[in-house]
Amino acid sequence: MKVNLEKVLPRDIENRSFEIITQELGDTPLIPGTELIVKRCIHTSADFDYAKNLRFSEGAVEKALNALKNGACIVTDTQMAKAGINKKALARLGGEVFCFMSDEDVAATAREHGTTRATASMDKAAALKKPLIFAIGNAPTALVRLYELMEEGSLRPELIIGAPVGFVNVVQSKELIMETDVPYIVAAGRKGGSNIAACICNALLYMLNNDRN
Amino acid sequence: MKVNLEKVLPRDIENRSFEIITQELGDTPLIPGTELIVKRCIHTSADFDYAKNLRFSEGAVEKALNALKNGACIVTDTQMAKAGINKKALARLGGEVFCFMSDEDVAATAREHGTTRATASMDKAAALKKPLIFAIGNAPTALVRLYELMEEGSLRPELIIGAPVGFVNVVQSKELIMETDVPYIVAAGRKGGSNIAACICNALLYMLNNDRN
Repeated sequence: MKVNLEKVLPRDIENRSFEIITQELGDTPLIPGTELIVKRCIHTSADFDYAKNLRFSEGAVEKALNALKNGACIVTDTQMAKAGINKKALARLGGEVFCFMSDEDVAATAREHGTTRATASMDKAAALKKPLIFAIGNAPTALVRLYELMEEGSLRPELIIGAPVGFVNVVQSKELIMETDVPYIVAAGRKGGSNIAACICNALLYMLNNDRN
Repeated sequence: MKVNLEKVLPRDIENRSFEIITQELGDTPLIPGTELIVKRCIHTSADFDYAKNLRFSEGAVEKALNALKNGACIVTDTQMAKAGINKKALARLGGEVFCFMSDEDVAATAREHGTTRATASMDKAAALKKPLIFAIGNAPTALVRLYELMEEGSLRPELIIGAPVGFVNVVQSKELIMETDVPYIVAAGRKGGSNIAACICNALLYMLNNDRN
C-alpha cells in the first residue's frame, strides 16, 4: 500500500474528525449553543461554508430540543433524508419520521393541481395534527407551501429545518421562512441537501442523548 | 409574500438548474463525456468544487455504462445512498442496489474483527459473484477494503465510485483507489457524501435512459 493511513480505531473516527473541524474553525465565531450542529454539518459535507451559512432563529435550538423531548415527529421531503435520520434515537423520545414523497395519493394530488409532489406532501403532513419538525433537504416548493400554510393559520411547526439545495427558488424559499416567526434552522444560500437536513436532525437528537444505536 | 419567486413549471426546474450550472461553469474545462456527471454533482450539492474534484480513470464512463447495460448491481455503504439511487431505472437494466450496513451478520463480523461495518459489508458484497459497481459515499474503510480485496485477486469491480466524505483517511483512501487499474470515478479531496455517490449512479443511469419513473 503506497498510501499512509492514519491509525484511528473505528469508534474514535468521529471524535478525531470533530477535533480536526474544531481546530480548522479556529476563531470562526459560532453562536453559543449551535456549535454541535454547525460542526456536524461540516462533518457530513467537509464544507466549511456551513460555518457561515447556517442561520438560527432566536432560541431555535432550545425550542427544537424541547419539541423532540415532547415526542415531536419529523417530516422530510426526501427518502434520503428519512434514511439518514437516526430513527432509533427519535423513537426513544416517542417520535417518528414521515416522508410522503413516494405516496400514490401525493403524486395524484400534485398532478391534479399542477404542483410538485413536495407541495402536496406538505399538505398531507399538515393534516397529521401532531407536533412536527420539518426537515426540508430538497424542494424549495416544500418551504413555499409551509409558508403558505402558516400564513393561512393551518400549520404551526415546532421547527423548520430549511436546507433545500439548488438553483431555482432555493435562496428565495429560505428567505421566506426567515421572514416568519417560526423557529428555524436554515442553510442560507444555494447549499444544503438531504444529508444536511438529516444531519441537523441527528445533531439535535445527539444533543439529547449520544447513544447512536 | 415579500420574496420574488421565479416562475418555473415543476417539470422544468431541473432543466433550468442545469442551464444555470452550464452558464456559471463558463469556460471551466470538463473531460468530454463526463459533463453530465459533473453537472449533476453540482446540481445535487450547489458546490462548484465538483468541477475540479472529480477524477475519472480512462474510459470509466463508457465502461460503467456498459456494465449497467449488462445488468451490473450497485453496492453502497449507506442507506442514504441506497435511498437516493433510482432503483426503478436500475431495475429496467436488470440491476439492483445492495447495502449491507444494517445487517446483523455484518455488525457481528465487524465486532469480532475489530473493523468497521463498512469493511465487513465489502466482504459480504465481494461474495455476491455478480458484476458490481461500488458506490461509496461515507466510509474510507470501505475503499481500503476494496483495495485489499482487489490486491488479493478476490474482487474485480466494474467501477468504483469513491466519494467518502470527511477528515480521517478520506483523502488517502481515494488516492489508494486511484493507484489501481480499476475503472473509477473519484471525488478527490475531503468532499463527497451519500448524495454525491447516489447522484453519480443516477447520472450514469440517466445517460442510458432519461426516464426517471
